[in-house]
Amino acid sequence: MADFDTAATPGFDGGKADAAELQAERSARLAELQEMLYANWKAAGDHRSVLLVLQGMDAAGKGGIVKHVVGAVNPMGVRYTAFGRPTEEELAHHFLWRIRRALPPAGHIGVFDRSHYEDVLIVRVHNLVPPEVWEPRYDEINAFERELVDAGTTLVKVAMFISLGRQKEQLLERLDDPTKHWKYNPGDVDERQHWPRYQEAYQAMLERTSTEYAPWHMLPADRRWYGRLAVTELLIAALEALGLSWPPADFDVEAERKRLLTT
Amino acid sequence: MADFDTAATPGFDGGKADAAELQAERSARLAELQEMLYANWKAAGDHRSVLLVLQGMDAAGKGGIVKHVVGAVNPMGVRYTAFGRPTEEELAHHFLWRIRRALPPAGHIGVFDRSHYEDVLIVRVHNLVPPEVWEPRYDEINAFERELVDAGTTLVKVAMFISLGRQKEQLLERLDDPTKHWKYNPGDVDERQHWPRYQEAYQAMLERTSTEYAPWHMLPADRRWYGRLAVTELLIAALEALGLSWPPADFDVEAERKRLLTT
Repeated sequence: MADFDTAATPGFDGGKADAAELQAERSARLAELQEMLYANWKAAGDHRSVLLVLQGMDAAGKGGIVKHVVGAVNPMGVRYTAFGRPTEEELAHHFLWRIRRALPPAGHIGVFDRSHYEDVLIVRVHNLVPPEVWEPRYDEINAFERELVDAGTTLVKVAMFISLGRQKEQLLERLDDPTKHWKYNPGDVDERQHWPRYQEAYQAMLERTSTEYAPWHMLPADRRWYGRLAVTELLIAALEALGLSWPPADFDVEAERKRLLTT
Repeated sequence: MADFDTAATPGFDGGKADAAELQAERSARLAELQEMLYANWKAAGDHRSVLLVLQGMDAAGKGGIVKHVVGAVNPMGVRYTAFGRPTEEELAHHFLWRIRRALPPAGHIGVFDRSHYEDVLIVRVHNLVPPEVWEPRYDEINAFERELVDAGTTLVKVAMFISLGRQKEQLLERLDDPTKHWKYNPGDVDERQHWPRYQEAYQAMLERTSTEYAPWHMLPADRRWYGRLAVTELLIAALEALGLSWPPADFDVEAERKRLLTT
């Protein structure tokens, strides 16, 4: 991870303007595939779903992905959940309890803005629980995700990486613009002191929970426009792999037409 | 209601092309206001919310409103719920039980695609429960909505009306296009036989549940583009009435800038 270039744009050799054009086109494709996923559930009981898991340091651009990538698909087929500091009720349960409650129904795209991985990231960095509690979580997460995949959910796990310098720029932007003050949290500056420990925790997460059935995608996120395009492509690839087509009518189209015309 | 012109475009004298241009502009305004609502909750604990309630016959265009109007705002701040045929668990509870569980949290825009009003519409038309059960529901709904409004939720109740002829066109379109077969339900044709009884049920709903604190908006919905524009304007008006502005920083901006620059 130390060698990871957060400013790279792997798989894309165009610039920002080319990206915008391509983004519009690919967003339309994503929206079409999402509708097909939904249609197959609605009309044919297809139980499959997709779950986008977004992780990344503060200001890595998770919010932008939600606004621009998730925002391009029909809200009817999306279930978005932000996982913040756990409530007392959530803390009184197993760490996966709140996660399970937010899983997308069949035919939907679920979006986790932060996720169960917080329980091996911030929790590990700040020793919110002792190592003998967080340590087994990697295996528990793998077992949990195996279960999801077996039940028909495709996981798209995206870890967004920005450089320490780029994060500073982003936080400064929030301070400079009064319409963005609400996004600024003084605690984010404190977290910067823990950057190396977060890198270590991310490294462990990638090594221990990137499985064949639910791999991590490391996203260079310094360039916002690239991140959006890349996540759009990951979602498209996940949906295309489902081999979807429009579900055939389960009624007699001609008979229905006649019946309708007499009313 | 018998005199209601479902093809009218009250308040707008332009055509479809003018509407598209205005729609883009007003969608941007709606998105900005939604972000402000969310920001005030997030940064300043503002507990207010907005709830859009969509009712209408099959093919009246509820789905299009969700896709195009709701789809224009950030998914982060939206809670969408479709109310279909109640489950066994839902039927075992009071009719408002499933509704309460889907209410938007503070700072969010909730969207009900059908709602508690089904319990005085389809339920009344088909006598799914006896009159002594559905009859008191009008008052219960008014009391429930009073409670919501008192707790800081602005209700935007939209009843979408299309003509019987326009509905036939829409259903035919679904039959003619294989990518829309999944939206077609043979039961919708049967429901057309009950049109007069639905009109009666809608009339009673409007008369008995249009209150000062939660009025109904009757939307002529024959022209899709008009419906979208009208609902966008209703949401904008509801949000503007909250008198929102960007929440001020609850930290010392200059001190934070200095602190950030040293990291």
